[in-house]
Amino acid sequence: MAVIGLGRVGLPLALAFARSGLRVVGVDVDAQRVSAVNKGDMPFFYPEVQRWLKEALAKGAFAASTPSKETIEHSDVIVITVGTPTGQQYQLDYSQVYSALKEVASADLKDRAIIMRSTAVPSTMTTIVIPLLVKESKLRLGVDFAVAMCPERILEGQAHRELYELPEIVGASDSLSAEIASQLFRKLSPSKKILITTLTGAELAKLFTNIYRYVNFALSNEFAIWAERYGEDAHEIIRVANENYPRSNIPRPGFAGGPCLGKDGFLLDSGTTFSSVVSTAWKLNEAVPQHVVMTLIKSLGSLYAKRVTVLGLAFKANSDDTRLSPAVKLVDTLKAYGADVRVHDPHIEETESLREVLRNPEVVILATNHDSFRNIATDIDESGCEFVYDVWGVYDPGAFKRAKYMRFGKAA
Amino acid sequence: MAVIGLGRVGLPLALAFARSGLRVVGVDVDAQRVSAVNKGDMPFFYPEVQRWLKEALAKGAFAASTPSKETIEHSDVIVITVGTPTGQQYQLDYSQVYSALKEVASADLKDRAIIMRSTAVPSTMTTIVIPLLVKESKLRLGVDFAVAMCPERILEGQAHRELYELPEIVGASDSLSAEIASQLFRKLSPSKKILITTLTGAELAKLFTNIYRYVNFALSNEFAIWAERYGEDAHEIIRVANENYPRSNIPRPGFAGGPCLGKDGFLLDSGTTFSSVVSTAWKLNEAVPQHVVMTLIKSLGSLYAKRVTVLGLAFKANSDDTRLSPAVKLVDTLKAYGADVRVHDPHIEETESLREVLRNPEVVILATNHDSFRNIATDIDESGCEFVYDVWGVYDPGAFKRAKYMRFGKAA
Repeated sequence: MAVIGLGRVGLPLALAFARSGLRVVGVDVDAQRVSAVNKGDMPFFYPEVQRWLKEALAKGAFAASTPSKETIEHSDVIVITVGTPTGQQYQLDYSQVYSALKEVASADLKDRAIIMRSTAVPSTMTTIVIPLLVKESKLRLGVDFAVAMCPERILEGQAHRELYELPEIVGASDSLSAEIASQLFRKLSPSKKILITTLTGAELAKLFTNIYRYVNFALSNEFAIWAERYGEDAHEIIRVANENYPRSNIPRPGFAGGPCLGKDGFLLDSGTTFSSVVSTAWKLNEAVPQHVVMTLIKSLGSLYAKRVTVLGLAFKANSDDTRLSPAVKLVDTLKAYGADVRVHDPHIEETESLREVLRNPEVVILATNHDSFRNIATDIDESGCEFVYDVWGVYDPGAFKRAKYMRFGKAA
Repeated sequence: MAVIGLGRVGLPLALAFARSGLRVVGVDVDAQRVSAVNKGDMPFFYPEVQRWLKEALAKGAFAASTPSKETIEHSDVIVITVGTPTGQQYQLDYSQVYSALKEVASADLKDRAIIMRSTAVPSTMTTIVIPLLVKESKLRLGVDFAVAMCPERILEGQAHRELYELPEIVGASDSLSAEIASQLFRKLSPSKKILITTLTGAELAKLFTNIYRYVNFALSNEFAIWAERYGEDAHEIIRVANENYPRSNIPRPGFAGGPCLGKDGFLLDSGTTFSSVVSTAWKLNEAVPQHVVMTLIKSLGSLYAKRVTVLGLAFKANSDDTRLSPAVKLVDTLKAYGADVRVHDPHIEETESLREVLRNPEVVILATNHDSFRNIATDIDESGCEFVYDVWGVYDPGAFKRAKYMRFGKAA
């Protein structure tokens, strides 16, 4: 089989199939990435999958390759996992999907199965993918070849567990395609639950899943803003509201973004000209970095030429992924207000060391809740900074003896 | 002790305390209600609490009364449970709160505890209730008398279970008040969890709890609209998205409103001039009845003079409560479009019988998901109606042989 796209979705998936006894070719247009992967080097931070890669290469169960017609024709199943990012104006960017589909369609697809795993605007399968494949291949869907939509729903960094545990949604318009896709994913675990639905239903189910979480993060952030206005601490109130209460599962306030949650709302929402719960949630979550800056300005008067240290650049804890990261937006906004910004992220080599960034800052902002930041409150306090701003509310306010401690969701 | 307000919050609470061994006076301004309650007649549908009422009256543990200074002075604890509705323009209506507070403040409050249970705009306790009580009583809060905010968080119709099982939030600004309120609620169950917080924190926690649910209902309704546009069935997609997936608990689409969820967003949100997640959620949920009407018009051309039967008028299943009920809004909207509307609700005497409303209708709409409606699909189908609209998606589409079946969230 072939997995097209050796990113955070495709590489763990390809290696999981290789571990299940399949021979897998991982295809990527990036020749440098292909050669690195073939040497056992991961293109991103993921220790568990790093181990899988070494094992699969040693066993000869996996190899990476740039695209070729032969790879497709040697594969009975081709899984497409390429990115579907949004552009600078949040317009849909399907260029990677078209490249992958054209690559696939250039081969003879007789008796092959094509499985889409990339997140897509609803009805992408029925209006783009299948028309393209049927037209180019001149084959009959569900008779001569199979096509299914099996959306990724794994938490980034949890593929090594969730590929085996989560149910798999299989969207198909014919029984042959549904059956082939189901069999494929059952190879990961014979007890894996398979949920068959329509093609568009599978696209929508993926978006519903992510948007549900995203909107709840926005609501929590809205609660944070209200708590600040009423002179309270949202973290404490949310704890009280949730505790032993069966109908309340309010998340904690904090940055919400990243390459999935930050754009999936647009994929669902792009067809309407009106405000929606999703678009309002987006507005709220996207405003949080600026809100942090405005709160600091209220305390400091101005950020111009102020030495500000930002801890964390990734969009989520223990990750090195900065795509659509609110922490990046925070850094850019701080710079726009004239701050002298230094950044440390333990998972991102290009940033400065913790030691360097804690040398004489005036403000320290915890922007990503990496585990390794949890026990450095004393180091921060002893850096001599005047203000600590905790976006995630992870620190005990009592830990700061010299600096003024502020957190998102608590009145300053 | 005294409980002011013999409504859906106050009466079950008063009787629960009476069952716990306290002598309770239930106070209400409505003399007719007071006299009915003293005869053992419930002012609303609630069979379990009906039994409590008879038992408490028989034991002499409970009596109802119109307000009097003596009642307050005979009570060591006074719990205020009066309504805090919103007006026709969704403005705050605190008239019942002021009446209750003035009644309370007319008595000597020395060594008494006043507990607010009515839902309130955040900071109502610190800016209205406590200033009023301190000013009128000329006593010292936390020394001479106690005041706490213990918000109701019980599902309507579930007080007989949830008063014993749910944790109690106690908001107080002094330890005496916190202690007295905690002791009172522990009388209901010694193992009852007590969560102490600030006065405003307790008000916010209550609103967060309800708004969290309300926004998730709105999101589900937004998903329903999207599924309709993409030709899919939201019920099916939500089932697939939730099944065995740890991060997804999307509710089912349907009407969202009622006296709590329909207004609590306004209590939190009234202080901002901008759109928020809450206000957008409100817009969405409030549009659903009109959306149902527009969908029917698309199928029928016009509703003018059409015989439309609405099943259910209450805002929630197995209740007789029609306050801010979307089903009432649906009926009004149908009438505005010229429909000839007949209504049946098994819990509301003023409506027609099921038999009458199923006599020759052209359209039947399931507007409230009462349990008793679940097995009448055949009766509806045999009524000869052309269209069935199922707001809650409770019916099996296959049950309708003659009528065209439509449901909210599914493309027609």
